[in-house]
Amino acid sequence: MNRISCTLVSVLLALAVVKASQASEPAGQQVTAAGMQSSAVGPADFFTGRVRVDPLYSANQNINASGAYVTFEPGARSAWHTHPEGQYLVVVAGVGRTQEWGKPVQEIKAGDVVWCPPGVKHWHGAASNVAMTHLAVTGTKEGKNVQWMEKVSDEQYASR
Amino acid sequence: MNRISCTLVSVLLALAVVKASQASEPAGQQVTAAGMQSSAVGPADFFTGRVRVDPLYSANQNINASGAYVTFEPGARSAWHTHPEGQYLVVVAGVGRTQEWGKPVQEIKAGDVVWCPPGVKHWHGAASNVAMTHLAVTGTKEGKNVQWMEKVSDEQYASR
Repeated sequence: MNRISCTLVSVLLALAVVKASQASEPAGQQVTAAGMQSSAVGPADFFTGRVRVDPLYSANQNINASGAYVTFEPGARSAWHTHPEGQYLVVVAGVGRTQEWGKPVQEIKAGDVVWCPPGVKHWHGAASNVAMTHLAVTGTKEGKNVQWMEKVSDEQYASR
Repeated sequence: MNRISCTLVSVLLALAVVKASQASEPAGQQVTAAGMQSSAVGPADFFTGRVRVDPLYSANQNINASGAYVTFEPGARSAWHTHPEGQYLVVVAGVGRTQEWGKPVQEIKAGDVVWCPPGVKHWHGAASNVAMTHLAVTGTKEGKNVQWMEKVSDEQYASR
């Protein structure tokens, strides 16, 4: 083995040792400071109107659901969709609407908590004249947490 | 069988049919309105100072973690404890403190997110002069989500 090969092997071995020690170190508390997770815009394929997603925490090997704030400007809403492991919504501000396929639109307000079971087709969004923010706690199954469907039409949104 | 027995049997059968139809009916969205879940006081065995727990949602067969707001008045804090499946804390208001056993006390502020892995001994609470509210997302393992330990002394609370 020449000197360059020896050096390369040494570097690779050192990296392997560092990686192994990182993996075996007992994990402690981790604080993610405010401002470290960027806001995202709800994609136009899955939302109508202006929607902002503020990620909070990810599903991990212990807790099988992620958490995020979702803020809908007046009139904004998700497309129809289902969740493979269900979803809790905690309305933290404003007034909104949600609807399960085939059932009437329901008004939801700050402090309300919604449970949507797996496979139930539904949508959620703001009231027509008031914004709404909810914490979305979304169960994850094999890396997936939502199945998107068609947009909510203006007629569907306005029905009561 | 006399008439009273017949009537009783009929009523029981009718109830059984109603129960069976409820059990087989596909579950839909469930809205728990604001005000339907009572606030609770953090028990003196597990907390120092005044602490309020506002339950939001339970762990269920799909999502393995519960959610609650916990509000600590200035100086209030939990006892030392561990979680069998870990816990996320999302600080929603105020300023607080958290500490992992053997490490320094850390200040936490609104917008910060803390991950505490399973089995890590720690405590959390308010700053000495400012209240703190966090969303606590607590993993559940075989029906248990916390192992309580000794109280946090004034010296431990004040150390930095």
